[in-house]
Amino acid sequence: MIRIYDTPDKTQWASLCQRPAIETKALEELVTQIFEEVERKGDSALRKYTQLFDGVAPESFCLNLPVLKDLEAQLEADFVQAIQTAAQNINTFHKAQKREEVKVETMPGIECWQRQTPIERVGLYIPAGSAPLFSTLLMLAIPAQLAGCKQLVLCSPPGKDGKVLPEMQYAARLCGIDRIYTIGGIQAIAALTYGTDQIPAVDKIFGPGNQYVTAAKQFAQRSGLAIDMPAGPSEVLVYLDDDRYSGFVAADLLSQAEHGPDSQVVVVSPTTDILEKVNKQLESQLEELPRSEIARKALANARAIVLTTLEDATEFINTYAPEHLILISKEESQLLEGIRNAGSVFIGPYTPESLGDYASGTNHTLPTSGHARRYGGVDLNSFQKPITYQRASKEGLNLLGPSVVTLARAEQLEGHAQAVLNRLNAKN
Amino acid sequence: MIRIYDTPDKTQWASLCQRPAIETKALEELVTQIFEEVERKGDSALRKYTQLFDGVAPESFCLNLPVLKDLEAQLEADFVQAIQTAAQNINTFHKAQKREEVKVETMPGIECWQRQTPIERVGLYIPAGSAPLFSTLLMLAIPAQLAGCKQLVLCSPPGKDGKVLPEMQYAARLCGIDRIYTIGGIQAIAALTYGTDQIPAVDKIFGPGNQYVTAAKQFAQRSGLAIDMPAGPSEVLVYLDDDRYSGFVAADLLSQAEHGPDSQVVVVSPTTDILEKVNKQLESQLEELPRSEIARKALANARAIVLTTLEDATEFINTYAPEHLILISKEESQLLEGIRNAGSVFIGPYTPESLGDYASGTNHTLPTSGHARRYGGVDLNSFQKPITYQRASKEGLNLLGPSVVTLARAEQLEGHAQAVLNRLNAKN
Repeated sequence: MIRIYDTPDKTQWASLCQRPAIETKALEELVTQIFEEVERKGDSALRKYTQLFDGVAPESFCLNLPVLKDLEAQLEADFVQAIQTAAQNINTFHKAQKREEVKVETMPGIECWQRQTPIERVGLYIPAGSAPLFSTLLMLAIPAQLAGCKQLVLCSPPGKDGKVLPEMQYAARLCGIDRIYTIGGIQAIAALTYGTDQIPAVDKIFGPGNQYVTAAKQFAQRSGLAIDMPAGPSEVLVYLDDDRYSGFVAADLLSQAEHGPDSQVVVVSPTTDILEKVNKQLESQLEELPRSEIARKALANARAIVLTTLEDATEFINTYAPEHLILISKEESQLLEGIRNAGSVFIGPYTPESLGDYASGTNHTLPTSGHARRYGGVDLNSFQKPITYQRASKEGLNLLGPSVVTLARAEQLEGHAQAVLNRLNAKN
Repeated sequence: MIRIYDTPDKTQWASLCQRPAIETKALEELVTQIFEEVERKGDSALRKYTQLFDGVAPESFCLNLPVLKDLEAQLEADFVQAIQTAAQNINTFHKAQKREEVKVETMPGIECWQRQTPIERVGLYIPAGSAPLFSTLLMLAIPAQLAGCKQLVLCSPPGKDGKVLPEMQYAARLCGIDRIYTIGGIQAIAALTYGTDQIPAVDKIFGPGNQYVTAAKQFAQRSGLAIDMPAGPSEVLVYLDDDRYSGFVAADLLSQAEHGPDSQVVVVSPTTDILEKVNKQLESQLEELPRSEIARKALANARAIVLTTLEDATEFINTYAPEHLILISKEESQLLEGIRNAGSVFIGPYTPESLGDYASGTNHTLPTSGHARRYGGVDLNSFQKPITYQRASKEGLNLLGPSVVTLARAEQLEGHAQAVLNRLNAKN
């Protein structure tokens, strides 16, 4: 099943940590062309490319949503209950991330403070491939609303019938959003970048997507917009040292592998024995999986790695910097202490990644491809920016001003010194 | 002096908010070439380009710093006292930004938490043009140390004699840094991106720079590194409605204008009269300024704008989204309430921008070119990334699991459902 690497030498680690290169360069010409056309021609360019890529060309891209009650009537009761539970937990966890204003008198008469302020206009891109990814909608719209963003521009590609599934519409309404823009792909990101008659421009774009959307978000970033983070295929790394749970871990690996053939699956253990048990479980569980063909392809590139010491395991995890990290270990607290690079960590045998993917409350928009070294996942903060403030009293300026004059002159910026001296010497 | 625009129509606002376009495209070829060569040849490429651009080619780029006492002996006592005061205030304000772990039980048995975790390896780029910008060194190194970053790689271009000024060396030592890499420009950013024998690779690059450094940071970002924010020329917007302070404001405008001919200077007032007084003060203060020629060039592009209502003034400020905003106003609190887009705000007549540039405690690395709409300035958080954690008890999984199964199946991800069911059905 998964290929086992027995205590690989550290010189091999770099190749074991390698992810597939995301080649957006080949798409650059296409992206540039579509962006230019959308900037120049607006909605008519959007119509052209929606026809070309999605096979429909609606007159209006704006779907005004029915009220919650009417949508609810179209859905199963257990779905409604489940998505409400998820929304509530996501809301609870992200609300707890609210930061109080930071206020300090750094010296007598010098007050400094910092306040998190909402980004006013945010674009939320929700992919809709084989299924409606309403869970991503919750993960982006709930923190955006909590942050106080004024304008949430939600884009999602239309189905082949030009429609948006009721699950998606319900999720949007549940988050207080009353319209969906039925547009996807490169053209959606271009619309969010420049704005068109129908679709408002935004300051920051959030959301996952395929290679086209990823390339388009990079282009938007170069044009001056902010984006949530660079995207790559989803990944999980599991650390297991307790053979009672090899069945659980096999299920976790499959839940990752079913995402796509490029899903990244890694399992680390102190013994070959445990890894062989996981492999056996994988074989039998694969039989039952509807998306087994996809999963099998992903597993062909998966890696099972024997690392006998906790130190090596911790170092390998930090070097890999996984998007999702599952720890089922007797040495749990020691491992946790050493983890410095990961998107989201799932601890203990009863915490499958699926919990965080949907409903526990944590965000599932997380850094892939080793980016957990430098980025965290989406959180409340992602929808805000800090503004700093300061006020000096006359006494404060008297106290601090002379230091500023000295430093400004040392940097040969006399005008900076004069802005202080002018006030210190004033009679009023 | 500054051209006055009397109550311009809103259709004119976009052009009044225009900043100079930052043209990095022309530099792309040069940047690509240097990055490729540094990746391939390492230090020898660094030597070649340092010779070409800085006129020196040191064997080693690593300057090990003398101890603090020895550096102090080379400096004026009042400089030492002033920089210590600045460092202390910056430390106080950034330390106050530390966030406690956020921990919530979103449902019985479902614990979720989020912890700010240091980015391990950070690159700090400190320009050194006509003067040593030790103030920028404090603004980057102090929060990096407070955040707990393991490796601070400090790069600054060498002087024509290959040396680094003692003020800069002292600032570094004061921040607990014991070596400076004497390298600048595109080649420094390439070295931080790929790493060479002498210079370590990093995860995120901070710091201002000229158009070459800006283009190189963009290239590094496309190669997967994180950067602090996009850079552009420095800017200030002053709102003044109290004519007693026209002299103070003129001094503030000059302190901005002396940065460079491309510095952005805007002043807004409810009356033409006040703006004319500011202009008169500018004329007389300019005479005294050593860098008056630079300032005069910047002022040629400056804008003085009459907006008679507070609503219009607030809306204009938010549309402009200034890096620095100075408010000297009788309607201060009403204005403050409306401000949503700004980097750092200086309030009242005794708070010149110079205070925050050097020593009050707030950070001076701030978003320019309207990016205050989407980015905040550098803060403690810029050197950290959040990691989320979760743990479910068996009871927690029993409670939440069924909802996750329902949602996973609605997204046609049976493997995700099975990762839960496998556990719910287990006997242990």
